[in-house]
Amino acid sequence: MKIQVNSQAISLIKNDDYKQVNSFLEKGFTKIGILVDTNTHQECLPRLLARLHTETPIEIIEIPAGEQEKELDTCIGIWESLSDLDFDRNSLLINLGGGVLTDIGGFVAATFKRGISFINIPTTLLAMVDAAVGGKTGVNLGALKNQIGVIEPADLVVIDSSYLQTLSAQEMRSGLAEMLKHGLIADEAYWRELGSLSEKGLEDLDDLIVHSIQIKSEIVAQDPHEKGLRKSLNFGHTLGHAIESHFLASEDKPKLLHGEAVAIGMLMESYISSELLDLPPQRLEEISKRLLNLYPRVAISSGDWKQILDLLKYDKKNKGGRINFVLLSDIGDPRLDCAVTPEILEDAYKYYTSTE
Amino acid sequence: MKIQVNSQAISLIKNDDYKQVNSFLEKGFTKIGILVDTNTHQECLPRLLARLHTETPIEIIEIPAGEQEKELDTCIGIWESLSDLDFDRNSLLINLGGGVLTDIGGFVAATFKRGISFINIPTTLLAMVDAAVGGKTGVNLGALKNQIGVIEPADLVVIDSSYLQTLSAQEMRSGLAEMLKHGLIADEAYWRELGSLSEKGLEDLDDLIVHSIQIKSEIVAQDPHEKGLRKSLNFGHTLGHAIESHFLASEDKPKLLHGEAVAIGMLMESYISSELLDLPPQRLEEISKRLLNLYPRVAISSGDWKQILDLLKYDKKNKGGRINFVLLSDIGDPRLDCAVTPEILEDAYKYYTSTE
Repeated sequence: MKIQVNSQAISLIKNDDYKQVNSFLEKGFTKIGILVDTNTHQECLPRLLARLHTETPIEIIEIPAGEQEKELDTCIGIWESLSDLDFDRNSLLINLGGGVLTDIGGFVAATFKRGISFINIPTTLLAMVDAAVGGKTGVNLGALKNQIGVIEPADLVVIDSSYLQTLSAQEMRSGLAEMLKHGLIADEAYWRELGSLSEKGLEDLDDLIVHSIQIKSEIVAQDPHEKGLRKSLNFGHTLGHAIESHFLASEDKPKLLHGEAVAIGMLMESYISSELLDLPPQRLEEISKRLLNLYPRVAISSGDWKQILDLLKYDKKNKGGRINFVLLSDIGDPRLDCAVTPEILEDAYKYYTSTE
Repeated sequence: MKIQVNSQAISLIKNDDYKQVNSFLEKGFTKIGILVDTNTHQECLPRLLARLHTETPIEIIEIPAGEQEKELDTCIGIWESLSDLDFDRNSLLINLGGGVLTDIGGFVAATFKRGISFINIPTTLLAMVDAAVGGKTGVNLGALKNQIGVIEPADLVVIDSSYLQTLSAQEMRSGLAEMLKHGLIADEAYWRELGSLSEKGLEDLDDLIVHSIQIKSEIVAQDPHEKGLRKSLNFGHTLGHAIESHFLASEDKPKLLHGEAVAIGMLMESYISSELLDLPPQRLEEISKRLLNLYPRVAISSGDWKQILDLLKYDKKNKGGRINFVLLSDIGDPRLDCAVTPEILEDAYKYYTSTE
């Protein structure tokens, strides 16, 4: 099924039908590279290779799995592989993996010989509804997330929910957080629909994924370079990113996935919204309840919190030293560029650590 | 003087008037960084700082001078400096230097936090007529030139020929090669005009520079991503780049500047044009004579030549293993994607090493 959401071409795979993907491969590429990580090499690549039909030579490039790979050294390795394999400007890169892999692969493709074509085939729920769509690519610079990157949409995004079968419940929950965010910032009905997710089957999941992509793509199309509206997608992410970075850098911490960190961020930022804007108390309670039900409270000590606040100042959304938040005036009604005082941040921390 | 050549805003400085530049700086940037190298820090920065008037904080970032700096490690150093100095998405980078510096600085700006605004102030003739205009940015990957980069035009290009006063004759000649190229590929009258350059003064040079930028910008505007017409700008560069890379990598070789290598490339590729296309013999002679007069023959041994041919296969313009050349059917009439056999390449080498 071919879906054109604004300018982003999306191929939704139904009944294992890769016809549209295969016809894209007939565009005269000189070589096709498939970028995989250790996991997707084993879990997803055999499935993909069995469905691709092309005369163009295919090369497999593997990188280790994990957020710690999202750095320039990994890019250098891939760029060198592409050079060694004689890839040219008319070659194609297919990124098969989660958000870390599509972020790296998109950046590598967008900068190799000043840009080659690339396809994203996200294999996690998080990447399907978020990373693979919208053109943001990037790598970390030390502990600073996505400091280096470009905005360059994939030539095609392939959504095949069969890849989700090997995903852990933790990873599914991580992806769900971004879907919930799409509801919170743009579509109350979608937020409600997601509330009854446990009663739904895989077929419904396809529709919910597409709905999420539509919400995101419509926002991105109106503001690709994040001058205004696109900022709303950062709801939960100002605090979420800082929390994620802190947990990643602390060796003694439990593993916290992106969506899990964003869920904490959304909860705190909803609290801030109720304090600074007119988000009604019963809405805050509804959001809190749903999020804490899906994402049980994580221990954040006051020492952790101090370090998280330190990381906040590196957020890409800051302007002139001021930390800007996206807040909610109501579900589906975001407010951009909201200034938040240290006192209210402290209250949000207390709210998170104390709510039942 | 403000010139809008297609979508590229150019500020041509006359009588030391930086008014237009200063009004650009009033766009509400949070910080202004000026990227300099060891040379421009000393030779050009005092002049620039004396003319900039702004309340926005200015930070100076220095890198060593030279092509060997055009690599990812240098970018990493600048990205880290920008992070440490709290630069955000609404900050501005001013690149003050030659083509190496504007290529690096443009890439750094286009990828820092997924892209911040930048101004190019080229300080060499080569950068004024070529590197600073047209949006190509990039760094080398090992010995491979400009393997990594993006296409992102500067928000403003400032042309101030006062910076040329400290330039060596060798560097002036290097820039002149690209101007001659613009004549050869697009404008016979301009080619003729450049023939009487020695009789002209600095005032005429300003006009010739602007004419060159106009030729380039018009080509780029029609084809920013080099799918067709823009390839004509690569005349002389297929061989030129390989020659330049080889000389750069050989420690015992004399220093060969970009334009000097391109001049050799243009001469050889003109010879190939006369063999494969209908470039008339008297035109070849005219081109040969002018180029050899300005760029005395450089010794290239048969061992060198073998290594230069090896480097050719990494050229970004290659497609599917075939090496593509831009050739001239006549002065001002380029032909794209011409295949050249090894035998004719050999003849071109002999022609260059034997012409009087």
